[in-house]
Amino acid sequence: MTYNVAILGASGYTGAELVRLIATHPSLTITGLSGNSKAGMAMADVFPHLRHLDLPALTTIEEMDLSGVDLVFCALPHATSQAVISKLPQSLKIVDLSADFRLRDPADYEKWYGKGHAATQMQGEAVYGLTEFYRDQIKAARLVAGTGCNAATGQYALRPLIEAGVIDLDQIIIDLKAAVSGAGRSLKENLLHAELSEGANGYAVGGTHRHLGEFDQEFSAIAGRPVQVQFTPHLIPANRGILATTYVQGDPQTIYDTLHAAYADEPFIEVLPMGQTPSMKHVRASNFCHIGVAADRVPGRAIVIAALDNLTKGSSGQALQNANLMLGLPETEGLMLAPVFP
Amino acid sequence: MTYNVAILGASGYTGAELVRLIATHPSLTITGLSGNSKAGMAMADVFPHLRHLDLPALTTIEEMDLSGVDLVFCALPHATSQAVISKLPQSLKIVDLSADFRLRDPADYEKWYGKGHAATQMQGEAVYGLTEFYRDQIKAARLVAGTGCNAATGQYALRPLIEAGVIDLDQIIIDLKAAVSGAGRSLKENLLHAELSEGANGYAVGGTHRHLGEFDQEFSAIAGRPVQVQFTPHLIPANRGILATTYVQGDPQTIYDTLHAAYADEPFIEVLPMGQTPSMKHVRASNFCHIGVAADRVPGRAIVIAALDNLTKGSSGQALQNANLMLGLPETEGLMLAPVFP
Amino acid sequence: MTYNVAILGASGYTGAELVRLIATHPSLTITGLSGNSKAGMAMADVFPHLRHLDLPALTTIEEMDLSGVDLVFCALPHATSQAVISKLPQSLKIVDLSADFRLRDPADYEKWYGKGHAATQMQGEAVYGLTEFYRDQIKAARLVAGTGCNAATGQYALRPLIEAGVIDLDQIIIDLKAAVSGAGRSLKENLLHAELSEGANGYAVGGTHRHLGEFDQEFSAIAGRPVQVQFTPHLIPANRGILATTYVQGDPQTIYDTLHAAYADEPFIEVLPMGQTPSMKHVRASNFCHIGVAADRVPGRAIVIAALDNLTKGSSGQALQNANLMLGLPETEGLMLAPVFP
Amino acid sequence: MTYNVAILGASGYTGAELVRLIATHPSLTITGLSGNSKAGMAMADVFPHLRHLDLPALTTIEEMDLSGVDLVFCALPHATSQAVISKLPQSLKIVDLSADFRLRDPADYEKWYGKGHAATQMQGEAVYGLTEFYRDQIKAARLVAGTGCNAATGQYALRPLIEAGVIDLDQIIIDLKAAVSGAGRSLKENLLHAELSEGANGYAVGGTHRHLGEFDQEFSAIAGRPVQVQFTPHLIPANRGILATTYVQGDPQTIYDTLHAAYADEPFIEVLPMGQTPSMKHVRASNFCHIGVAADRVPGRAIVIAALDNLTKGSSGQALQNANLMLGLPETEGLMLAPVFP
Repeated sequence: MTYNVAILGASGYTGAELVRLIATHPSLTITGLSGNSKAGMAMADVFPHLRHLDLPALTTIEEMDLSGVDLVFCALPHATSQAVISKLPQSLKIVDLSADFRLRDPADYEKWYGKGHAATQMQGEAVYGLTEFYRDQIKAARLVAGTGCNAATGQYALRPLIEAGVIDLDQIIIDLKAAVSGAGRSLKENLLHAELSEGANGYAVGGTHRHLGEFDQEFSAIAGRPVQVQFTPHLIPANRGILATTYVQGDPQTIYDTLHAAYADEPFIEVLPMGQTPSMKHVRASNFCHIGVAADRVPGRAIVIAALDNLTKGSSGQALQNANLMLGLPETEGLMLAPVFP
Repeated sequence: MTYNVAILGASGYTGAELVRLIATHPSLTITGLSGNSKAGMAMADVFPHLRHLDLPALTTIEEMDLSGVDLVFCALPHATSQAVISKLPQSLKIVDLSADFRLRDPADYEKWYGKGHAATQMQGEAVYGLTEFYRDQIKAARLVAGTGCNAATGQYALRPLIEAGVIDLDQIIIDLKAAVSGAGRSLKENLLHAELSEGANGYAVGGTHRHLGEFDQEFSAIAGRPVQVQFTPHLIPANRGILATTYVQGDPQTIYDTLHAAYADEPFIEVLPMGQTPSMKHVRASNFCHIGVAADRVPGRAIVIAALDNLTKGSSGQALQNANLMLGLPETEGLMLAPVFP
Repeated sequence: MTYNVAILGASGYTGAELVRLIATHPSLTITGLSGNSKAGMAMADVFPHLRHLDLPALTTIEEMDLSGVDLVFCALPHATSQAVISKLPQSLKIVDLSADFRLRDPADYEKWYGKGHAATQMQGEAVYGLTEFYRDQIKAARLVAGTGCNAATGQYALRPLIEAGVIDLDQIIIDLKAAVSGAGRSLKENLLHAELSEGANGYAVGGTHRHLGEFDQEFSAIAGRPVQVQFTPHLIPANRGILATTYVQGDPQTIYDTLHAAYADEPFIEVLPMGQTPSMKHVRASNFCHIGVAADRVPGRAIVIAALDNLTKGSSGQALQNANLMLGLPETEGLMLAPVFP
Repeated sequence: MTYNVAILGASGYTGAELVRLIATHPSLTITGLSGNSKAGMAMADVFPHLRHLDLPALTTIEEMDLSGVDLVFCALPHATSQAVISKLPQSLKIVDLSADFRLRDPADYEKWYGKGHAATQMQGEAVYGLTEFYRDQIKAARLVAGTGCNAATGQYALRPLIEAGVIDLDQIIIDLKAAVSGAGRSLKENLLHAELSEGANGYAVGGTHRHLGEFDQEFSAIAGRPVQVQFTPHLIPANRGILATTYVQGDPQTIYDTLHAAYADEPFIEVLPMGQTPSMKHVRASNFCHIGVAADRVPGRAIVIAALDNLTKGSSGQALQNANLMLGLPETEGLMLAPVFP
């Protein structure tokens, strides 16, 4: 059985990554691509690496013919998504890659995104797209909200630990190193090669990054009480990948055993042997997430490190994994591409 | 129909790249991996990015059980290959990725590689593995010799032009920019990140690079007279990719038309519209080759630029393409992975 | 004796590089910095790496007090310079880093820059700033026009050869690899880290790059007849540096001897031993230029490679070298900083 | 007054960095360079970026003539230094860049370096070379032990806070990002460009890095009680620089005020305005250290980030700063080179 999909916002990096992954997916056909500022252009002119593919030209969203489409990936900018999605036909399944439907509480949305939500009626409907933890709801969902890429990485390291109650909830630190593609194809001075290469710096330091809204929502829900982690992202000179180093207090072996058990049957989550820690490069361009645990020399403390590719497992790969579930396809279909190394 | 394959020399980059590609190939199963210096290790310990795969452990070549194997990829170091291959059972099909069987003439081999060949009887048997130009012979071959990655790139730009007689054979310059993985996983000072990053330099300047042996052999054979190109490779700070800028004398439009016609039906060779030139990044981690032609302001001169990924189209992807042909499989099977960008 | 200098256009990379170099120059004091779009800001907020320096705040050009200033560096964008410079007081010495006064012939300017020159009366007055070849005129000049960074690199490799008549004037090819800072601090998609890193591509292929205007002007003047080189620049993933590989026809040893003799007494030009070729990385952040010569295997052909840092010897270092001469200071003052490696 | 200096171990990165800095130092002359494995070679052949300098050829240590030498920089590998230094004439001043004399207690040395010290009698004599905190002792010292580059960065962020008693001594985490040159010019697989570029990973995770010996020694001495920090270094794809993100518990404004006051008169330590955090790139190739403080959203917690260049302020620049003090020269002489950006 083959399904037709469309991608709204195909001129950004997550849109291009969706096309890359779907290109070798056996059950999906791309029948529409939108990109408002580049409407009328061939995808090969916007992303020459996709030149070998037979793709529809970019259109505006309004021009797109959605008849016959089974599922839409919405890779639009934050805040744009909510307006567009609220007007899509009820018959369409939707995987949203923006931040618009990640937070369930309108007040939380307003707190972290600085203005009211334009489609609050859909916020409750949306299922949070962290596949391994919302699998059943995703299968039944019409609208799935893709997670933040940083938020996904931190949750893979910490969710089973919070759920199992094996770490101190008031002493959680996430020090995250992020490659630059997470910032999108945007023309900002700090994203220039000349400014980023050979550099490294923290940003949104002190607890102001919007993905904290997701950490708070999810961790508090699991714990059944408010949980506020410390989270400091850093920009490093690489294109793809996130490495989240988390510092927790609890028994290291118990922590390891908890993670190992939680992910034992997961096709994309690899828990390394105790004491080994992952490298961002070993998951590049793939849907895999590597997790490692080490005991600190200070008793009762552990370091848990998770690595994934922000564009794949952190965004477009996750979206495809969820789409597979929503369409009744095998969850891993089209996603078993091995990481690219070196 | 599924075939069993083994990889000799799986602990290097081309070996790992073969595993990456075969991981999602529907008709091939890896039943043996050798790596003499790392025999006994799990592949996941040598290349952690392959950790999710169920692979045989590394063995020595001697320990490897070749019964039931249909085809062997030989990714051993130059000079080692010839001794190993000459001892393999006659029933095995072999794709060699080393330099050992690229040159048909033992004298040429000795000239470029500095010593006599240990298996001259097989030199004549081997088919040169530039798929698009040796397709029929490859289908029938028992032993295919993978090309040099630089040699492949230059030939994609120039072969049809030499064959059609549309350029001056005595005024051909290939200025090539190569990423570092072409040098393999070898511990040399100039391959260190601290030495290569932010740098660029020519090497083997003046016509001493061994891939010139392939250019000479192939171009002279096509032209029916000796052809000696100038060839200067440069090392640039990137991991994957080759960009070959070739300077030729002839009518630019004729040159363009010749290339366009030659590759019209090729699944992996994309000739860009006249005047557009390729980027190394747009073919990364894929089996595609992009070629562009521009007229110079000096009348009667043109620039032809070809880009490919040295580890894929320049080596392991080419090897797999040839293996598909040798096994009677569709030529593109397992090789349509889209380039990874950004 | 100490001189006061001002920098117009200090918010770009060449402006910042001037400040870096002047920071440890014993005879120059910066008394004014302009940056129209960032007027009112402290230099430390525009370029935090200069935070330790006691610098004047950025002003508009109009607000700048030029009384007491001995020399102005004009690092404004192309086309802006000519209007500004034509209004500066006659008493000021001026080193212009833009393209505005590089071409002596108004018709040439219009041909390469697409519109008429706004200060043609000053075009004749301006001295071309390639120090080693215009030293005496620069000492006496009021206005010196800094060269293009690519143009400088190619000329260091070729000028002595053309002057000595030891190469074929109709068979000169310059294949140039340029780091990204030459494009300035400009917000363009292809300059993003995610787009440039791991890539390489030709640009202005076919003889359309504006620095060809300088090559034509200078090489033709030396040769006493029109000379048209082929010139193909490539963008590579590095921040600083240019490597120009030039292909020439002539006797390699004569070529080497000619270059060696020409630069024997030059403090910043190093000709490597015959057969050795330079690395871009070995001149980084310095005012040095390394040149190497290799004979090709094709008799009568040679490769000459030159490397320099586009922001230093190719632009701001050159400007300071010229300013030293114009002010009667030792030519090398403040410029002997060793290259930064690794 | 000019002094003669020699560098033992000049064929490594810290040796080359010393030569780079001394090249423009007005009061020092290099009269000897050793490099046992490269004895007999010209420095220009080992480090071509130093080609313009008139330097003595490399010798063995035994061959070196130390008569007339005032001060020796010892940039030998760890464990080699102690044997060499114990045999140097008593009249020589010595700045050691190795780890051999950083730990005052022989038991600590054995614990962290895995074997007994060969010159315990000199361990007590050596002064710890963190200039800003040992200035008076360094002025009077014969032997100064350069600090670890990671250890220096962490101490700049934390020492004043521990001394002032404004943070919780049992809740200190140092998450450090290190560029690759800190590992030296050593041929290791993980230092290859192909392995490091586009990657990031923790190493010595869990409290096993040797620089913890320095943290323990220094922080415990200041606090007057044992202090054990958590310290996780990460390797990131850059050549120069360290960014240390430290997580502390205490009042953020008090923490800021304490650091600001502590470094108010320091020529090389820049404390950024409250809330701003440093970038590794803004101190590259310089002797400056930038420090920033941000309050976390969790009350009573702060993030302190310090950035410096591991080869300059973290090693050779620090060594030169100490040498200046030991020779009675101005502390900043030869060290005011502005950072190189971009």
